[in-house]
Amino acid sequence: MTNWKSYLKKNQTRFINELCEFIRIPSVSADPNHADDVLCAASWLAARLECAGVENVSVMPTAGHPCVYGDWQHAGENQPTILIYGHFDVQPADPVDLWTTPPFDPHIRDKKIFGRGASDDKGGMLIPILAFEALMKAKSRLPINVKFIFEGQEEIGSPDMPEFVAQNRTLLAADMIFSSDGLQWTADEPNIVVGLKGLSSMEIKVTGAKADLHSGLHGGAVANPLLALSQILAGLKNAEGEILVEGFYDNVRDLTNEDRAEIAEVPYDETTYLAEIGVTALHGEPGYSARERMWARPTLDINGIWGGYQGEGSKTVLPNEARAKITCRLVDDQDPENIFEVIVAHCKKICPKGVEFSAHRLAGSGKPFRVPRNHNASEVARQVLEEIYESPPYITRLGGSIPIISTFLEEIGVHTTMFGFSISDENLHAPDEFFRLRNFYRGQKAYCRLFERLKV
Amino acid sequence: MTNWKSYLKKNQTRFINELCEFIRIPSVSADPNHADDVLCAASWLAARLECAGVENVSVMPTAGHPCVYGDWQHAGENQPTILIYGHFDVQPADPVDLWTTPPFDPHIRDKKIFGRGASDDKGGMLIPILAFEALMKAKSRLPINVKFIFEGQEEIGSPDMPEFVAQNRTLLAADMIFSSDGLQWTADEPNIVVGLKGLSSMEIKVTGAKADLHSGLHGGAVANPLLALSQILAGLKNAEGEILVEGFYDNVRDLTNEDRAEIAEVPYDETTYLAEIGVTALHGEPGYSARERMWARPTLDINGIWGGYQGEGSKTVLPNEARAKITCRLVDDQDPENIFEVIVAHCKKICPKGVEFSAHRLAGSGKPFRVPRNHNASEVARQVLEEIYESPPYITRLGGSIPIISTFLEEIGVHTTMFGFSISDENLHAPDEFFRLRNFYRGQKAYCRLFERLKV
Repeated sequence: MTNWKSYLKKNQTRFINELCEFIRIPSVSADPNHADDVLCAASWLAARLECAGVENVSVMPTAGHPCVYGDWQHAGENQPTILIYGHFDVQPADPVDLWTTPPFDPHIRDKKIFGRGASDDKGGMLIPILAFEALMKAKSRLPINVKFIFEGQEEIGSPDMPEFVAQNRTLLAADMIFSSDGLQWTADEPNIVVGLKGLSSMEIKVTGAKADLHSGLHGGAVANPLLALSQILAGLKNAEGEILVEGFYDNVRDLTNEDRAEIAEVPYDETTYLAEIGVTALHGEPGYSARERMWARPTLDINGIWGGYQGEGSKTVLPNEARAKITCRLVDDQDPENIFEVIVAHCKKICPKGVEFSAHRLAGSGKPFRVPRNHNASEVARQVLEEIYESPPYITRLGGSIPIISTFLEEIGVHTTMFGFSISDENLHAPDEFFRLRNFYRGQKAYCRLFERLKV
Repeated sequence: MTNWKSYLKKNQTRFINELCEFIRIPSVSADPNHADDVLCAASWLAARLECAGVENVSVMPTAGHPCVYGDWQHAGENQPTILIYGHFDVQPADPVDLWTTPPFDPHIRDKKIFGRGASDDKGGMLIPILAFEALMKAKSRLPINVKFIFEGQEEIGSPDMPEFVAQNRTLLAADMIFSSDGLQWTADEPNIVVGLKGLSSMEIKVTGAKADLHSGLHGGAVANPLLALSQILAGLKNAEGEILVEGFYDNVRDLTNEDRAEIAEVPYDETTYLAEIGVTALHGEPGYSARERMWARPTLDINGIWGGYQGEGSKTVLPNEARAKITCRLVDDQDPENIFEVIVAHCKKICPKGVEFSAHRLAGSGKPFRVPRNHNASEVARQVLEEIYESPPYITRLGGSIPIISTFLEEIGVHTTMFGFSISDENLHAPDEFFRLRNFYRGQKAYCRLFERLKV
């Protein structure tokens, strides 16, 4: 009887071909013209799960793109049940002409597979399925109970997933959750993500006269909504970058010495970072390192601003309306709803006379997410990564937000462990996206070990 | 032999029919599809000038829409030569469905003629031609020398007129200039406009990273160009509305007690004004009345602002660029070029670290225009208006800018006297534009008297 190691080794060429096949389905969730392709990817995936030996496989509808579910629950009640998450939809391929080879016609160069979704997340989500298959082929059974849930709308912000997860709470119930959508630190250095930020999104509006005015006839007499909006926005932060909104920091848990030490341990080179993004200087809240600000401090950014004339040349208009979009990235224990309220209260307080202020929340909010120290699943993941990479993983955080993870925590009551094998340099969301074949293989071995180690 | 009064009286019906004919030509200068109609209006006008007895009539080309010139210079060298200005192009008629009767199919209701250009400026510019004709019919000669210059691009900012006037300085040379494009205070109260503001237009830009960034991954680390732009714009004025730009007020001539008394004499009702524009409070530079700010103090307005995401919903982007358009209305002795420079210097000084500031001037600048006290032509105009209206004209200013007037002063060395008979309530630039037939007639009488009074 073969063991999983030799099974994986023997089947890599087939697995790579299967990944190519998967990438060829242009499952772009953002484009309605590709809705059928998203469904096609779901069908392909369902077939692949069954072929691996997964049971109860089904393509499940949502109000939008479908999900694919499957499980194998014969390890016994004393063994843990783990839920594995991933997504089979991909980002749009535009601009297509910047790709070296066509986005949906995968090519292998330099031990990398190029194609849209290769890294995010088709390569990533195939990994645990292939690991599952290897263990099944080796021993006809798994040491633990496994559930798979794959969504088809991650790249458009998972609009229907909160409802889907809430409605399928029992089906998805698990002791631990692992996300196949995730990053390692570098091609050869692992990490464990222990924190994600929450999100509060809003649009604000400043209104003046009942219609646009002639700037010559009325300029100087009345408040200009564009200036008023600028004054309000400028009043959200001081020159150093500290947020001035009363109550904004109230529920923020201070960084402990342990937190700061953990963050400081992760390599960071400011010169490289500056060059990478193309700015001459960093800027942000005083008293914290740039990385602390990015990973562990709440932030407030204006995402868009508009009002008045934007065309060619000049127009002597005194516009009657100006708007801005704002998102805040939150940390424990900030609450998206409360943050919206304190910002609105602050804006109203500093809004100049003669104009009206209004605001509304935008979709896409979520609570911050912090994996507790010594979290069971993360501890196991850490050990597995250390074995596979032969070096201990960095403990990192992300300034971004992954709403599904908050949804899992709220509905299923379990923290998710990011256990994916992409690297941030793999052109995710950009032309020439690729996935390192070495990490495709390494990920399969890591998941096999993870499954074995989770056995009690 | 008839006199001009009876000639005017006898011919009003024909004159109104001719105005209707003129309005029927849709000479919309902004719309390239109407370029032929602008030319057609020029031809119609040239024919009408000849019919009135004007000599040397010609349609003169510019780089854009043409001008129409004509003169009559047989009054003798000891008599003054006056130049009469007007424009035969009109604003677009959109939104057409808000017109009670079609914009280019003039109708008379309630002693008003409705149609695009009725008031601005086809009715206005016919007036001096009809007055000229009446005097010629009455006496076969005029007491003074007259030149007419009409342009076809006023409604698009007269882009080719500075060059045209400079190239035809000798042809247009005159002792006095009267503009038929102008307003009286109300339907029965005259005014003399003694001041127009100058204009300095610019676009400013704040640039951050080399591309848009993910607000989750980079938020908090780098300056946000949208916030930086807001901070810069907010830094242009204090909360009271005073402009903080160093040097901005340096060349502003203080309002004298005489100036302030003159302005205070003109009726102004703040409650009416607030209701008219639909704001709850006025706002502006302290120490000056609203009307002083509108008429006689320099102003700075943001005309447009944009950057980042403006679509539906939320996008967690940290945009790398933000822009704004700014215009300043200037008073004596501010210079548009200098104002641009002091604003750029100020913006650079207050621009936050980590972003780049840049700016460029936009077309449409002009110097402020003030008619000197006891200006010869304005004095005569004032006497004529007092006789015709049986009450002295208000001495008013306009916060707006009319670039051609600065051009005339620069190239011909003569201040222009606004001598037009429109009223600001006549829906200029809006649906249902109209001209009061009473003022059409009154204007003709006023111009006849003006011509007679200008005789030395």
